[in-house]
Amino acid sequence: MNERDIKEHALQLHKELVGKIEIVSKVNLTNAYDLSLAYTPGVAEPCKAIAQDSEASFEQTGRGNLVAVVTDGTAVLGLGDIGPEAAMPVMEGKAVLFKQFAGVDAFPLCLATKNVDEIVNIIKALEPTFGGINLEDIASPRCFEIEERLKKELNIPVFHDDQHGTAIVVLAALLNALRLIKKSIYEVKIVLNGAGSAGIAIAKLLLKAGFKDLTLVSLEGILCPGEEWMNDRQEKIAEVTNLRRLRGTLQDTIKNADIFIGVSGPKAITGAMVRTMNKDAVVLAMANPIPEIYPEEALEAGAAVVGTGRSDYPNQVNNVLAFPGIFRGALNVRATDITEEMKLAAAYAIAGLVTDKELSADYIIPNALDKRVAARVASAVSEVAIETGVARKGSSLEKIN
Amino acid sequence: MNERDIKEHALQLHKELVGKIEIVSKVNLTNAYDLSLAYTPGVAEPCKAIAQDSEASFEQTGRGNLVAVVTDGTAVLGLGDIGPEAAMPVMEGKAVLFKQFAGVDAFPLCLATKNVDEIVNIIKALEPTFGGINLEDIASPRCFEIEERLKKELNIPVFHDDQHGTAIVVLAALLNALRLIKKSIYEVKIVLNGAGSAGIAIAKLLLKAGFKDLTLVSLEGILCPGEEWMNDRQEKIAEVTNLRRLRGTLQDTIKNADIFIGVSGPKAITGAMVRTMNKDAVVLAMANPIPEIYPEEALEAGAAVVGTGRSDYPNQVNNVLAFPGIFRGALNVRATDITEEMKLAAAYAIAGLVTDKELSADYIIPNALDKRVAARVASAVSEVAIETGVARKGSSLEKIN
Repeated sequence: MNERDIKEHALQLHKELVGKIEIVSKVNLTNAYDLSLAYTPGVAEPCKAIAQDSEASFEQTGRGNLVAVVTDGTAVLGLGDIGPEAAMPVMEGKAVLFKQFAGVDAFPLCLATKNVDEIVNIIKALEPTFGGINLEDIASPRCFEIEERLKKELNIPVFHDDQHGTAIVVLAALLNALRLIKKSIYEVKIVLNGAGSAGIAIAKLLLKAGFKDLTLVSLEGILCPGEEWMNDRQEKIAEVTNLRRLRGTLQDTIKNADIFIGVSGPKAITGAMVRTMNKDAVVLAMANPIPEIYPEEALEAGAAVVGTGRSDYPNQVNNVLAFPGIFRGALNVRATDITEEMKLAAAYAIAGLVTDKELSADYIIPNALDKRVAARVASAVSEVAIETGVARKGSSLEKIN
Repeated sequence: MNERDIKEHALQLHKELVGKIEIVSKVNLTNAYDLSLAYTPGVAEPCKAIAQDSEASFEQTGRGNLVAVVTDGTAVLGLGDIGPEAAMPVMEGKAVLFKQFAGVDAFPLCLATKNVDEIVNIIKALEPTFGGINLEDIASPRCFEIEERLKKELNIPVFHDDQHGTAIVVLAALLNALRLIKKSIYEVKIVLNGAGSAGIAIAKLLLKAGFKDLTLVSLEGILCPGEEWMNDRQEKIAEVTNLRRLRGTLQDTIKNADIFIGVSGPKAITGAMVRTMNKDAVVLAMANPIPEIYPEEALEAGAAVVGTGRSDYPNQVNNVLAFPGIFRGALNVRATDITEEMKLAAAYAIAGLVTDKELSADYIIPNALDKRVAARVASAVSEVAIETGVARKGSSLEKIN
């Protein structure tokens, strides 16, 4: 299939469907008695039960299976700030994935405001409606503050997928790549190109997972304490990365690196740069649709394992491996938060689905359409939520649809 | 069926269903190509189309068929201020009715704020997501200000069902009751007991429809200019009603009335009071679940036609006859507003469904489950929207599911 075909088919599909999701009734109203149960006067009973104990909203309404997918339309795909109306097709797509992979009801909310206080207040006011909040495609650095404040102020899980979904799947891919090439997470030298929300989230989760030697690079250069062009978030992450306090460019730091992770832009590295990396180099080139380097070129330059964000190459590093199962797991135990421990558990669960026998340079991570993934992630996430005390419900009984 | 049965069955049904609505995908993702159309990279195309022309959001996403059902949980059923969590079963029920009667996707939003500015700002920020806003169970007088401000500031229709849905169905019932007893709308004397949001909305629509002699009564007494206990809205409506500038109580004004409309409370009138009304009196006793007077008693006291809000008596005056068709009609032509003319058209359409042959004291209004109603209301509403210039789209092509 060529790209022009995909573009035309996608437009046609969206126009035919007029929306990729619909809201469907679970009750059938055929007579007055049906109406009196689902609506007045019967509906007063679940209302009263919830008024007495608001936790009953997770049993008498759809809240316990419902996630809001919230965006302000400022960082949509590679398209940037295209506005809330134009962000909707992506958010609907996300809702489709939530339902198909994990049975989660997800509803897209595209907000016509870029003001942090307003966005936080809107989502806070919507807390009684939802069991979880998935933030999506909100530009950095606003996305950080919005997520941090909501995590503090809400009693339901909040998860910015562009940060943490990406970080979880990258971690899973790296763990398996290292399993394959037999290097240790404590010893590998990592270069992370792209110091926006995804890059910083990846760095944090890798450190949490035990990786030690990690250097971030942005368009301005290597993140190093003291560089004046860094924003607050970059300053913070620079303190705990870049062990050798390197200054300079991507070219300077990629030399003798074991792992290159790109969440930057098209063709950000060359085959010549990959050649300067250590033996058995791992390259995750995730810029979309044009990666930092195409797999053919990276492999020719000596890389042992290459992953991208694309579905037409092996090792697709795709958030869909993480977010459906994460929320399924959180909702199943009515978690109040999605913690770092839960994110690590998700990454280990994804990585663990690839058996030693299956593991190869072309298969370090399950396929994006692998239906086993969400269930495995969900149960790992639920378990850790219970162990670490963020579950409101003691056991995971719900099943994936 | 007795009331205890309904209560138990309703609780059981809600617990079994865990929510009366679900969000369902219209696309099936079975292979990588499906994923590339519904999600990345294909989804970028509808995004770009909408970024160029935001009206395309009505074609490339579900917006054009999507209504938000918004409440703050302050005036839910007869239960009052039970909070946003506890309001959800009613809002989900509303979404079920929207879908089943008119194919409208409706999504419930229960807000944890009672602040007018906050509610207005939240709904404004959500405008890119929805094709219409149905306000629900918001206490008076906040509901007035919220609706008025939203109608001014939004470019999609806003409709407070507790006000206008009730008013439309009452008007339809009265038109047919008068057809039956052969009295003129210009001559009948109406007493309207209850001067909250529903009562005042009914009064306004009846005046707009041509009724002349209308007197509102609240618990404090007859609404009359100069009475000090009235709020702003009551003062305004008092100016244009109560022609004889009566002061006093319900008992004083019901005497020699042709029509009693109750949106007040249980057993607000007695058979003795109905006996003081004119010959061929019409009684619409809509307090729920216990009406202002039970039909048996009103009929025994000489009323010619009696309607209630209950499904177990003839002539159920139920909003479900109005709101699904109203929004279907508005969405079909991408109306920017729901105007008084559209409300009148809806009432005439509902009344018109009862033929001269069918019309009787037990059948002045279609059954709440009559599937013909929404379609008829929708086409009437669309037509008037086009004629009066609030339609953004020239013709009504969509059909009811």
